Amino acid sequence: MATLFKDVLILDGAMEKASRGHILVSKGRIDSILSADQTPPAADKIVSGHGRMAVIPGFVNAHTHAAMTLVRGLGEEAPLMEWLQEKVWPVEAKLTADYIYWGTLSAMLEMLAGGTTCFADMYFEMDRVAEAASGAGMRAALCRGITADANDPGKVGRSLQENLELAERWHGREGLITVQLGPHAPYTVPMNDMKKIAEAAIDRGLGIHLHFLETEWELNYLRDELKATPESYLKDTGLINVPYAVLAHAVWLDPKLADTMSFSNMTLIHNPCSNLKLGSGVMPLNDWLERDVAVALGTDGASSNNRLDMWEEMRTTALLHKGVNKDPLRVTALEALRMATYEGARAFGFARKGMIREGWMADLVLVDLDTPHYIGADEENLAAYIVYAGSSADVRGTMVNGKWLYRRGDYPTLDREEIVQRAREARKAITK
Amino acid sequence: MATLFKDVLILDGAMEKASRGHILVSKGRIDSILSADQTPPAADKIVSGHGRMAVIPGFVNAHTHAAMTLVRGLGEEAPLMEWLQEKVWPVEAKLTADYIYWGTLSAMLEMLAGGTTCFADMYFEMDRVAEAASGAGMRAALCRGITADANDPGKVGRSLQENLELAERWHGREGLITVQLGPHAPYTVPMNDMKKIAEAAIDRGLGIHLHFLETEWELNYLRDELKATPESYLKDTGLINVPYAVLAHAVWLDPKLADTMSFSNMTLIHNPCSNLKLGSGVMPLNDWLERDVAVALGTDGASSNNRLDMWEEMRTTALLHKGVNKDPLRVTALEALRMATYEGARAFGFARKGMIREGWMADLVLVDLDTPHYIGADEENLAAYIVYAGSSADVRGTMVNGKWLYRRGDYPTLDREEIVQRAREARKAITK
Repeated sequence: MATLFKDVLILDGAMEKASRGHILVSKGRIDSILSADQTPPAADKIVSGHGRMAVIPGFVNAHTHAAMTLVRGLGEEAPLMEWLQEKVWPVEAKLTADYIYWGTLSAMLEMLAGGTTCFADMYFEMDRVAEAASGAGMRAALCRGITADANDPGKVGRSLQENLELAERWHGREGLITVQLGPHAPYTVPMNDMKKIAEAAIDRGLGIHLHFLETEWELNYLRDELKATPESYLKDTGLINVPYAVLAHAVWLDPKLADTMSFSNMTLIHNPCSNLKLGSGVMPLNDWLERDVAVALGTDGASSNNRLDMWEEMRTTALLHKGVNKDPLRVTALEALRMATYEGARAFGFARKGMIREGWMADLVLVDLDTPHYIGADEENLAAYIVYAGSSADVRGTMVNGKWLYRRGDYPTLDREEIVQRAREARKAITK
Repeated sequence: MATLFKDVLILDGAMEKASRGHILVSKGRIDSILSADQTPPAADKIVSGHGRMAVIPGFVNAHTHAAMTLVRGLGEEAPLMEWLQEKVWPVEAKLTADYIYWGTLSAMLEMLAGGTTCFADMYFEMDRVAEAASGAGMRAALCRGITADANDPGKVGRSLQENLELAERWHGREGLITVQLGPHAPYTVPMNDMKKIAEAAIDRGLGIHLHFLETEWELNYLRDELKATPESYLKDTGLINVPYAVLAHAVWLDPKLADTMSFSNMTLIHNPCSNLKLGSGVMPLNDWLERDVAVALGTDGASSNNRLDMWEEMRTTALLHKGVNKDPLRVTALEALRMATYEGARAFGFARKGMIREGWMADLVLVDLDTPHYIGADEENLAAYIVYAGSSADVRGTMVNGKWLYRRGDYPTLDREEIVQRAREARKAITK
């Protein structure tokens, strides 16, 4: 089954400008890219763009907790710890494997409608998350969130075991799923356990996905409780030696560290909307980009954002750092687009995903430019239109592995009505 | 023609929680509001919500330059003055009255699709803007942007005359249009002229809409060139004595001024996205709210945002101030909703607009809650869902004065195809 995108504007995060032409997709890959003056090849299905549709790479939501759609909107406008302890955690404790399955599927409906083709998820009952993603044909990077419990000394070991079994079963499966180990954060996993998890990652050739320095409190925790600096922590735990490490948030990590320590195996995940909403602060993004440290974008869970919409993260990234640094030249539209697509894919071990190149994964978003807010968009300025003027409402189709998972309001591989109904029932059950 | 919204969630920016019930709209007003257990009255048209639609007040975009849709996306990622002088101003100089008419209509398509029912516009050829708004039945607060020109000493006088004639013709017309005087800013209108304009406003009982302290450069200009403080400027020009003054941006105005000077005739317009994008900084919003100074929200023109989407401004307002102040309790969802609706209406002289009350203007937005991202929304938490999880993609209808101006992709009072075509032609002509 080959699909031809005929006469579309083509843009990815590494192109200086968009090009107008045709894309042939076959066997899950971008088979060929032709310029507008070339005769488009034959195909089973043709999407005619008439120069008023754009094709961009699918977004990668590089840090989320998908099933937290079920706890969205609980106890808003409360201080962080009160919110977590009184509103979120008691409800989360009622989540069953089934609820997590339906909550994840509900998140997938939302993400696919906004052009997200892959999500990096840290939660529990991750086999069901893998089942949800794989069943629909969506890409996902999965880890079991591992936390310690003073009253249950075996918990870290059991969770690590679950995470390793998840990797056995799912890592690399159908090219759709990668698995990482998921130690939650330095303040929820003791140093010794973090070391063991890093060793396990090295043994198995797996990456690690953790929260790192989201809040100033965590930086103080490192200093006061662990007697560590961020540098000594990353070195002593062995995180600098794992195949790759993905550090979510990193709001309070000082970019100067990159002057003396290699970040070549690390990607930072910037979650600007969540960091703003929780009052965590603003990551010094430009200082990282200037040091060539890889940064991707994520939404975080739906309870601290509250959208799972990568257009929002991309736009907020491009606006926020200009504003707080009083410098309109910070973070270009193109940089934001690359962070929202290619950087997230690369971070989680998906090769040849996130750009529009021959032989790369056919994870693509079809964007309608035939609307008032794209008047004036052309090859030269398309990135600025997409990032500053665009939104998820412009998405007309989301393709993963060459197959439509979302097309004009429909989900060919998902039963939207059942998912919404089941997610509603789950929400009711856990908030009773 | 009466319209009944049957079984909807009803929310405005002054309600502690939403209520479930029916709204009867008749003769341009909210005729009656009934609770869900009351029998809904008869009506010509019925919109059935089944408890899965919300009705909120129409947004008021309290500071924009609508026809700048035609210069959107020109010269992005450039320093501010280079961008204005080399990219925007030379192109703007080619705008004709006709182009402004079609550019404004194009902006209206965009705003109506996102639930905006009223916009406050400062530009030129404002008779054509009034014609566009009035013709479609959209509300607007209009002023002629007045700037001085050293080579044309009569310019301010002529522009003021145009603005006064605009007021004669349009102020109060059909209850849809109000007119203000529009001195552009302290750095583009000499002190003496600003005084004359303030006097004219007092004479005619008109409000004033101006840019005030958008950038730090303007604060320095006041000090160095005008030998003025913000306080002395507002007093010496007479702006504190006009019927009402609307100060757009005010990023660099110190809220402590409200401790010693009355702001009772003033509203500040916060344009968070534009201020971020241009690197102007972040307004100290909370310090104003704590002092009970009125603040409304605007998008600014489409060349510095680049969306005309009040959902974005509302959400950015609710997120940004939490983040930069590291305090998750700043600016609640409800406060942001009130600023995006009621405060803008009140600022520009529209009485009984911006809340859902019997006898108030039937300027309403129909929001679809039957989507994955509203699972869990209820009367208690609807404001948080709308502001943090919602977006313009959720709008199913926008009603002004009891009439649908946007309904499920259609514009009953506007010829979308012609507008888009004409706006495209205008864009081509001015960028040739």
